[in-house]
Amino acid sequence: MMNRKKVIFDTDPGIDDAMALLFLHKSPQVELVGITTGPGNGTIDVTTRNALYLKERFGISAPVARGAAGPLAGEAPPPAAFVHGQNALGDIPLPERVTTPPHELPAFRFIVETVRRNPGEISIVAVGRMTNLALALREDPEIVGLVEQVVIMGGAFGYHGHSGNVSPVSEANIHGDPLAADEVFAAAWPLTVVGLDVTKQTRMSNAYLRSLADENPKIGPFIWEITRFYEKFHISRGVLDGIYVHDSSAVAFLLDPSLFVTRTGPIRVVMEGIAAGQTIQKADSLNLPHAGWDGRPSHAICTDVDSPRLLALYRRVILGETD
Amino acid sequence: MMNRKKVIFDTDPGIDDAMALLFLHKSPQVELVGITTGPGNGTIDVTTRNALYLKERFGISAPVARGAAGPLAGEAPPPAAFVHGQNALGDIPLPERVTTPPHELPAFRFIVETVRRNPGEISIVAVGRMTNLALALREDPEIVGLVEQVVIMGGAFGYHGHSGNVSPVSEANIHGDPLAADEVFAAAWPLTVVGLDVTKQTRMSNAYLRSLADENPKIGPFIWEITRFYEKFHISRGVLDGIYVHDSSAVAFLLDPSLFVTRTGPIRVVMEGIAAGQTIQKADSLNLPHAGWDGRPSHAICTDVDSPRLLALYRRVILGETD
Repeated sequence: MMNRKKVIFDTDPGIDDAMALLFLHKSPQVELVGITTGPGNGTIDVTTRNALYLKERFGISAPVARGAAGPLAGEAPPPAAFVHGQNALGDIPLPERVTTPPHELPAFRFIVETVRRNPGEISIVAVGRMTNLALALREDPEIVGLVEQVVIMGGAFGYHGHSGNVSPVSEANIHGDPLAADEVFAAAWPLTVVGLDVTKQTRMSNAYLRSLADENPKIGPFIWEITRFYEKFHISRGVLDGIYVHDSSAVAFLLDPSLFVTRTGPIRVVMEGIAAGQTIQKADSLNLPHAGWDGRPSHAICTDVDSPRLLALYRRVILGETD
Repeated sequence: MMNRKKVIFDTDPGIDDAMALLFLHKSPQVELVGITTGPGNGTIDVTTRNALYLKERFGISAPVARGAAGPLAGEAPPPAAFVHGQNALGDIPLPERVTTPPHELPAFRFIVETVRRNPGEISIVAVGRMTNLALALREDPEIVGLVEQVVIMGGAFGYHGHSGNVSPVSEANIHGDPLAADEVFAAAWPLTVVGLDVTKQTRMSNAYLRSLADENPKIGPFIWEITRFYEKFHISRGVLDGIYVHDSSAVAFLLDPSLFVTRTGPIRVVMEGIAAGQTIQKADSLNLPHAGWDGRPSHAICTDVDSPRLLALYRRVILGETD
């Protein structure tokens, strides 16, 4: 039996968050040990309710720990209801309340305790704002040496002519709590970022989504339903068939890093001005001293992806065709 | 007889500036009507002396107008002598003084008067800091409707994995006077930027430079000599044969825009923080309202270049093989 990766999924479901959660849930490589929530695609109430709903509906055993309601400093923009819907799951019918309660610990403390209990074994896949991770680091900086790895969907590094979704250079997960992100990037743990410039390289067409619905009647129709609203947003942005694969790209990196090309170097987040929320990596290959980056730990960013293989992996996992 | 483009060359020679000046001087498509200087690769004294030296040595009829010594606001970093040498022409032997005096007008006023005297006919190729252009705009904002076009070598837009040379995202010409650059990009004149990410796509090998020296004994050996120092800098940056083609890429755009791929959208310059000096374009194709860019004029940036054709064009012009 394969030695499964123990994963904490930090998320703000969110349509593509829900798809990534199901990707983790169905992967035989993964033992999902916790779901931590944050605001972003919805308020903290909405995303926590959604995480608990997904746990109930799909029989996910991992507990859901509720995250911080706002960023480390300042105020965050309101949820982008035009992307994920008022209920953040594409406005499919949802119960107002769920019966399952969240975990008794707040998200950041749940992360610390879970990492402490499983030294060297926990992978964190974080696809929302970085607030919970930053609070966990502030609570217990030693976790940087105790996690297996951190994989983040967030930011944008300008590859492929793509860039931000909040400004030309800033992406919502980072823009929503830039200080938290900068603290997470300042930590010397093994960390990889899949930015928006790379997640937008992979698109699930309607034919692809339809085939999931046809071939896995338990999960596929749910994915189809929640993505109808999401697709309307994509059409408004000029994507004429299907949806980008944002959060599931981070899961895909966890499952098979060979799908990606990476570049290493320290990463900073811009705090002010028109570039606020931008992620900037100083490539290790760049021979250019700069106080902003020097002395900070090197992390990996993804610069390209083998999209056909990623799509095949997601499909195989959702349809239970892996061994 | 071809209708030649009247060109003002705003420059801080500088090794690649000198190569671009000779490119303009030798092009039968160009009537060089003025050279305006600025600090950057050397102090204003050094770059103005160098421009006058080049004028004398190569019999260039265009006058040299001396530019502002410093940026619009704040202080600029000192010249990067490790790139262009102490005398900014690769430390080849140069006279301390030249006999030709500069034009009686300061650069910005020379630009205004020349544009006013040739309405609709002047192209400005600017390959240093944007200070002279910004001062010209402040002096006479109506010149925006009177110039034929502006072509700038400066900035970096993140294509091809390349970025800045002062910080991971900022390039020296823009970083040296970010306010001037932002004012130049705010003007609604026909403007194209060739950024560092694209100029670094083209490299002149030593064999290429050697062949210029062999085949044009008047100009080629000079180019060979000044590029020896420049090549050492390139080697220190991991470029193992030859030099990047920065300023001449802007001239190449003027002569043959079909060499380049472009993208349009308003451009801003970051003024503060770790991204200071970064150029950010909001692509017109990006459906994303943002107060930082909205309402500003759209300009073109180059995103890719046909390097073999560019190299062939430079060679043909320098060797006098054009008709």
